[in-house]
Amino acid sequence: MSTMIDPLRRAVHTAPDAVAARCGDVEITYAQTWERVRRLVGGLRELGVREGERVAVVGRNCHRYLELYQAVPGAGMVLVPLNQRHTASELAYALEDSGARVLFVASGIDYPDGIVEHVIDLGEGYEALLAGAPAAEFPDALPGDTMAGLFYTGGTTGAAKGVILTHRNLVANAFHFQAQFAFRPDTSWLVAAPLFHAAGSIAVLATVWHGAGHVMLPVFDAAAALELIETHRVTATLVVPTMLAALGEEQLARPREVSSLRLLSHGGSPVATETLRRARDAFPGAELMHLYGTTETAPIATIMAHEEALLDAPQARSCGQPAIGVEVRVLDDETGQTAAAGVVGEVLIRGENVMAGYWNKAEATAAAVLDGWYRTGDLGYMDERAFLYLVDRAKDMIVTGGENVYSTEVEEVLYGHPAVLEAAVFGIPDARWGEAVHAVVVPRGDVAEADLVAHCRGAIADYKIPKRIELTTDPLPKSGAGKVLKRELRAPYWTGHESVVGGA
Amino acid sequence: MSTMIDPLRRAVHTAPDAVAARCGDVEITYAQTWERVRRLVGGLRELGVREGERVAVVGRNCHRYLELYQAVPGAGMVLVPLNQRHTASELAYALEDSGARVLFVASGIDYPDGIVEHVIDLGEGYEALLAGAPAAEFPDALPGDTMAGLFYTGGTTGAAKGVILTHRNLVANAFHFQAQFAFRPDTSWLVAAPLFHAAGSIAVLATVWHGAGHVMLPVFDAAAALELIETHRVTATLVVPTMLAALGEEQLARPREVSSLRLLSHGGSPVATETLRRARDAFPGAELMHLYGTTETAPIATIMAHEEALLDAPQARSCGQPAIGVEVRVLDDETGQTAAAGVVGEVLIRGENVMAGYWNKAEATAAAVLDGWYRTGDLGYMDERAFLYLVDRAKDMIVTGGENVYSTEVEEVLYGHPAVLEAAVFGIPDARWGEAVHAVVVPRGDVAEADLVAHCRGAIADYKIPKRIELTTDPLPKSGAGKVLKRELRAPYWTGHESVVGGA
Repeated sequence: MSTMIDPLRRAVHTAPDAVAARCGDVEITYAQTWERVRRLVGGLRELGVREGERVAVVGRNCHRYLELYQAVPGAGMVLVPLNQRHTASELAYALEDSGARVLFVASGIDYPDGIVEHVIDLGEGYEALLAGAPAAEFPDALPGDTMAGLFYTGGTTGAAKGVILTHRNLVANAFHFQAQFAFRPDTSWLVAAPLFHAAGSIAVLATVWHGAGHVMLPVFDAAAALELIETHRVTATLVVPTMLAALGEEQLARPREVSSLRLLSHGGSPVATETLRRARDAFPGAELMHLYGTTETAPIATIMAHEEALLDAPQARSCGQPAIGVEVRVLDDETGQTAAAGVVGEVLIRGENVMAGYWNKAEATAAAVLDGWYRTGDLGYMDERAFLYLVDRAKDMIVTGGENVYSTEVEEVLYGHPAVLEAAVFGIPDARWGEAVHAVVVPRGDVAEADLVAHCRGAIADYKIPKRIELTTDPLPKSGAGKVLKRELRAPYWTGHESVVGGA
Repeated sequence: MSTMIDPLRRAVHTAPDAVAARCGDVEITYAQTWERVRRLVGGLRELGVREGERVAVVGRNCHRYLELYQAVPGAGMVLVPLNQRHTASELAYALEDSGARVLFVASGIDYPDGIVEHVIDLGEGYEALLAGAPAAEFPDALPGDTMAGLFYTGGTTGAAKGVILTHRNLVANAFHFQAQFAFRPDTSWLVAAPLFHAAGSIAVLATVWHGAGHVMLPVFDAAAALELIETHRVTATLVVPTMLAALGEEQLARPREVSSLRLLSHGGSPVATETLRRARDAFPGAELMHLYGTTETAPIATIMAHEEALLDAPQARSCGQPAIGVEVRVLDDETGQTAAAGVVGEVLIRGENVMAGYWNKAEATAAAVLDGWYRTGDLGYMDERAFLYLVDRAKDMIVTGGENVYSTEVEEVLYGHPAVLEAAVFGIPDARWGEAVHAVVVPRGDVAEADLVAHCRGAIADYKIPKRIELTTDPLPKSGAGKVLKRELRAPYWTGHESVVGGA
């Protein structure tokens, strides 16, 4: 079966002179990319990295990151893409847990010392590695269940898990995507979401397979994105909802020539219908497409194609129908069977895209994957036409601006402050972020909200820090077993909102 | 992973009311199809057919054939589609070799008695089976390497082989096709080539997966095909070259409203560039696409997309670049390595689409598949951009009107006539058939060409009977080892022709 390097193997033959990636002033062809990835693997081998060993990367979107994404797994090694918004201590957890032997790190990113054997700057250091290395050969073939990458979800605590995605998982996802969006040799894909996230890397294999081009956006900025779309005649992209909103606003305020855009897909968290309407107005030539999925499903589970035509239909709040190649069903908690249309239950996903498991977490894997079905923790229902509607999340997780935040992790940090007696963290509706991280704290003494925020800073990534910390003297509502009833705390914020969750 | 019934499982949920198939006056929705295939499997189980057992079918294109194609493998049984142009004795070979327990046979087809336990008429008998059967459940999942079908190539002799295609093989091919042609829910696929052949069934899974519709053409006729295209707004089809030529002629002579046609793909044997030009003129709105492949590769190996734009380019004679997901290379006979650009060698194919092997023919399998690479027997070269050009066939096979004819089989029949001393059979260029079956015979007495043709009739299918049998008194040219040098016999016919072979 195909591996992560096979798309490039094809592109270097079918389209050697086509531009593989544009990144700032840099333009790299497929022939050049091929030479570069061979040297990259040669360099890694000279450092002593062998098949099965982990190579981590933390940095902004750039052509070098694209090369790592293909070459490291292609060589039989395992890529560990890390969140560049994480703190040094959060990065430390993933680096230790994965046992990475090499870390590629972009300038300006604070990373932990003394964990990884070889730390290589993603700019000049990377280029020096290539310059000094022999052009290596990739393995002729790899078993499909070979690990391709470890993708960390969550943060510093036990909640953080390394999702094992195999070559088969990621290749399957590439075919599932291609079955419902027509990639072509003249596709120009804007990498707008960060590459460590499935939303950023989702189209890499398909784009390379067609010998098509990437346009890299190092850090998201709506005006910069629109300029790239106009300049490079970008035809397709995937963004998270906050980006979608910003792109719509910017384009309506200062229109660019964006008629080249055929696909404006989004995923990562819920989107307000109003945001979709504005995106439709701003980009009238583009198909809007909602992708719902999870890191564990590599990621696509459902696809809402031509969403722009359904914004006034009952399906407007749906995240789409099961993607071709992926089975999706709703489990009726009461019967243990597939739920009837309209009945809410946990969303389950099966297909070749479902992860091999969590790294070194056999118990968590057994709890998450049952008979090949991945339990998303999302609650939803399907209508008579298999449109899926998400209504809540079974897992204690918040999706904010496309990032997953585990409530327990934030709660633990809050509990670490001496003045915190009780703490509960949950998501509340937010026009910009989809959900905002919100905390309710019962203090045991005199403490200000700002003190608690300052306490969180440095311990966890900025996006995990509660946007609001509500102080109360009432004890938190609890179940008989003493469990905090978050549902009761959340309820007043969600009145009049449909809590639609989930993200690619 | 997905099985042959998963596309239908999806379509019955996402598009229950969409028309799955139009066949004459019959229109069947996906909801109806689902009910029918469940009863079909119920009926087969009541006949005692178990998982792994073979169910044969011989008949014209119809909705019932489509149902068998999905339901039999979906139930874990093995479909054996047979060539309806074969004689009873040719059918007998495949029925005996496969050990089929059931044969579905269309009216008017001569089939051998006493071999198969249950013979069921593909019309009323089929409907009676469904009417009397309970609606069964399909297995929830099947291992990917489960046999889905046995596809016979060749004829009555040792040359005839049952190609084992697994669920993985056929599902992989469906994804490979979808990666390069945009199937959509509003696709309307004309099944023009016979369903027993890969050219006929190539798009079934992809079409069903999208909840799109089939339009069935029971027997090819250009005028009938154009009427269906016009009436049902057909958007896509695949034909063999003789059909392509006939469609072009008919449309230029008596134009229909065929603007709905987006894809006019072809495969099965070589096509004259002039035929392609006429097709381009006749169907200006359609993409011409050449698919090259073999039954053993389920079938797609290379794709020539947008061929209409390349008819005046050097690539006009190419059968395209490796399909996405498929590896294609040319083996340099002298070095045993991949040939350099421009160097002729045997064409090898690797991918999840490569057959599991030949049924009960371990030796032939070992000779045909080496380290996952299928040896096509076709000779060709690749240019600098991985465009493949076929120049000859290593195997002693003729492709005529999309059908494979093994020379040895025809030679054996000729040798069966008492007046034949020596016989050599090979293909010669033919404007209508791509290649025509041609024989050179050295008689041992007085015999007329018509006598030999009459001798062949009944023994082998009509399309295998030589169009010309040349009688000569000169002994056939032979190598030192006594092998007939067909190359020398063929040469005068091919002067000025480029022998382009191969077929999907």
